[in-house]
Amino acid sequence: MDFFNVVSVEEARRRVMNVFKDYTFEREAISLLESTNRILGEDIVSQIDVPEFNRSTVDGYAIKSKESHGASESMPSLFNIIGEVHMGEISKYNIKSGEAVYVPTGGMVPEGADGMVMVENTEKLDESTLMVYKSISFNENIILKGDDIKIGEIALKRGRRITPEAIGVLAALGISQVKVYKKPRFYIISTGDEIIDLDEKLEMGKIRDINSYTLYSLITRLGGEVVGRSIVRDDYELLRAKVEKATAISDIVLISGGSSVGTRDYTAQVIDSFNGKGVFVHGMSIKPGKPTIAGEGEGKLIFGLPGHPVSSIIVFKVLVEYYIRQKMGIIDFTPKTKAVMDFNFPSSPGRETYQMVKLKEKDGKLYATPNFGESGMITLLADADGYIVMKSYEEGIYKGEEREVYLL
Amino acid sequence: MDFFNVVSVEEARRRVMNVFKDYTFEREAISLLESTNRILGEDIVSQIDVPEFNRSTVDGYAIKSKESHGASESMPSLFNIIGEVHMGEISKYNIKSGEAVYVPTGGMVPEGADGMVMVENTEKLDESTLMVYKSISFNENIILKGDDIKIGEIALKRGRRITPEAIGVLAALGISQVKVYKKPRFYIISTGDEIIDLDEKLEMGKIRDINSYTLYSLITRLGGEVVGRSIVRDDYELLRAKVEKATAISDIVLISGGSSVGTRDYTAQVIDSFNGKGVFVHGMSIKPGKPTIAGEGEGKLIFGLPGHPVSSIIVFKVLVEYYIRQKMGIIDFTPKTKAVMDFNFPSSPGRETYQMVKLKEKDGKLYATPNFGESGMITLLADADGYIVMKSYEEGIYKGEEREVYLL
Repeated sequence: MDFFNVVSVEEARRRVMNVFKDYTFEREAISLLESTNRILGEDIVSQIDVPEFNRSTVDGYAIKSKESHGASESMPSLFNIIGEVHMGEISKYNIKSGEAVYVPTGGMVPEGADGMVMVENTEKLDESTLMVYKSISFNENIILKGDDIKIGEIALKRGRRITPEAIGVLAALGISQVKVYKKPRFYIISTGDEIIDLDEKLEMGKIRDINSYTLYSLITRLGGEVVGRSIVRDDYELLRAKVEKATAISDIVLISGGSSVGTRDYTAQVIDSFNGKGVFVHGMSIKPGKPTIAGEGEGKLIFGLPGHPVSSIIVFKVLVEYYIRQKMGIIDFTPKTKAVMDFNFPSSPGRETYQMVKLKEKDGKLYATPNFGESGMITLLADADGYIVMKSYEEGIYKGEEREVYLL
Repeated sequence: MDFFNVVSVEEARRRVMNVFKDYTFEREAISLLESTNRILGEDIVSQIDVPEFNRSTVDGYAIKSKESHGASESMPSLFNIIGEVHMGEISKYNIKSGEAVYVPTGGMVPEGADGMVMVENTEKLDESTLMVYKSISFNENIILKGDDIKIGEIALKRGRRITPEAIGVLAALGISQVKVYKKPRFYIISTGDEIIDLDEKLEMGKIRDINSYTLYSLITRLGGEVVGRSIVRDDYELLRAKVEKATAISDIVLISGGSSVGTRDYTAQVIDSFNGKGVFVHGMSIKPGKPTIAGEGEGKLIFGLPGHPVSSIIVFKVLVEYYIRQKMGIIDFTPKTKAVMDFNFPSSPGRETYQMVKLKEKDGKLYATPNFGESGMITLLADADGYIVMKSYEEGIYKGEEREVYLL
């Protein structure tokens, strides 16, 4: 692989972002109910005040707060009950000195009132006379109109992942259609004479197509859409025809490489054969994942991913996912946790090293154990909870060290 | 609310699990490509050895390893190259003393060979003569047949969430259809005279239906399906009719309560009016979320959730999500992280307290800031990254303390 002009992960990312700086992902309006996990395509500017009226946060009586001052168990203040506001009703009252109106939690506080005294701190002497046993302060137990969100305020930012909580905010604003980024369209091509699909009979010497399935699932989780999936033999013309078809209907083409050097050659040649910049990353200083290719063909981003399933997952996360997150300005919190390393681990000088780990909790502390094993072992994947990253300048990991684990 | 027989979170969970101990969630077979994030409904027992043949992990030559012993740069061992195994091909060779066969990475190691010497450590003297410069050990650079997964071995356990990594394992086993739990069916009912849906005009005094949207999204994220959604006025007969319809077509009915005491009464009465155990949890010692109801009607689990959006989310996670996870035996790692608390926080004696927090990274450390605010504030939700839990016996949280944050 010494013919590669291997670049760092940072440089590979920079080149991808630079070549595709003008590429845009379209947006679409969808129903709020269908928007979970999608990425917000625009800032949400509130068209209303929330709440739209002064709202009580307790069951109790609306009064002029000043008139409760000095009230106590032994010396209650007296008020004249002039009525009641029901839930969902507009208050028709305008409270004057000495008057009180009953308002339930969430109900509208009448004009003239500037405090809600909780029902627990009152007693009715008769139907129209209220004793208040506790003093309240100005605007106590009221959310004022616009206190939560004001007209013209940005309630949610573009790039925000639409969580249940964000949906709550959108519903509060009365937004039933929301503009999100369209799902990025991916086309997956698995290459290699030895690769057969799941519905084919496994002959001796052949290998099941694993990568296109893990990639399909990674794309689903990322919020993308797979518009096509093919297995192609190690043949330049066949691969070129398939990539041509793929660039026509997708945003990103993933060529999951056969493990032979020959296949990798084809991938680069094919990418270079189209209109565009051709291959601009050929080898990345990352372990695993060195034989990574990135290029442009017919205006589309084309990746050549390593054939090994673990490498392919790592490169997807490091490069493909990074690209999508940057383009959509995704601002959510990356799930990660600190854990104590349960092992010594050597670094690979000059390469960023990614190691899958399994997490175990012991006495309230998290410990990370590596998922080692000979390259090619797929069972290792099943147990992994996350991965750690060692920078290229690091000397290695010592047992007992606490490090960040990125959750899968 | 003193008429409640308030129980602890643990007791509420125990009762729910006990009453529904015989309730089963059905399973269905679906395509592997559609199975991302679903829950595996059975143990996956491998029908094959993986790999199905001794596989090379390098590009190189298959030899009898013993015959390389003593080889060095200055004193190479000599071998007779008798052929080559191509990718995806069955080896027809049976290697004898002094013989070598070229095998690419992933290719089948011929009979008789028990080691692969990397091509980098060899040199061809002529077309049929190989010099080996380095000694290899027994089975070096080979994954033996069945080393990864053996016939009859459990490769993945029931209750396992199907991640991209699990899909990789299933693909390696040649499994294209996988048995998963059917999506649990939920029916959401929002109650309250003041509640209006998003497509209705917001009149003064009314409040947008927020909870059924956040619940819909929480259910989606949990892997459930919403089979119906309704808004019902505070009316016993209307609510009863709707719940009757809901129990007929769903596994779980969520009644998102109006905030008034009256609505809560209706909910309990309605649940008690059906065949079954009726209400068995009426009040839970949790903050927020005290007015939580759980009951059985027509054999279905019915929850009465608090009207406040944050409370409703918390109770969903603590009780509804817990129930589903237990019933399906879900064994995935709950995303959580340690963070330094950036605030003092009082506990609520005798109640488990849940507090939404926002995470900020500073000098490589995570800090948690609370999303405080008057009850009813919906914007607080938008910023939350996770929540912390204070047990009922805790005295409070001190600034600077490190605690677990459960990620949303």
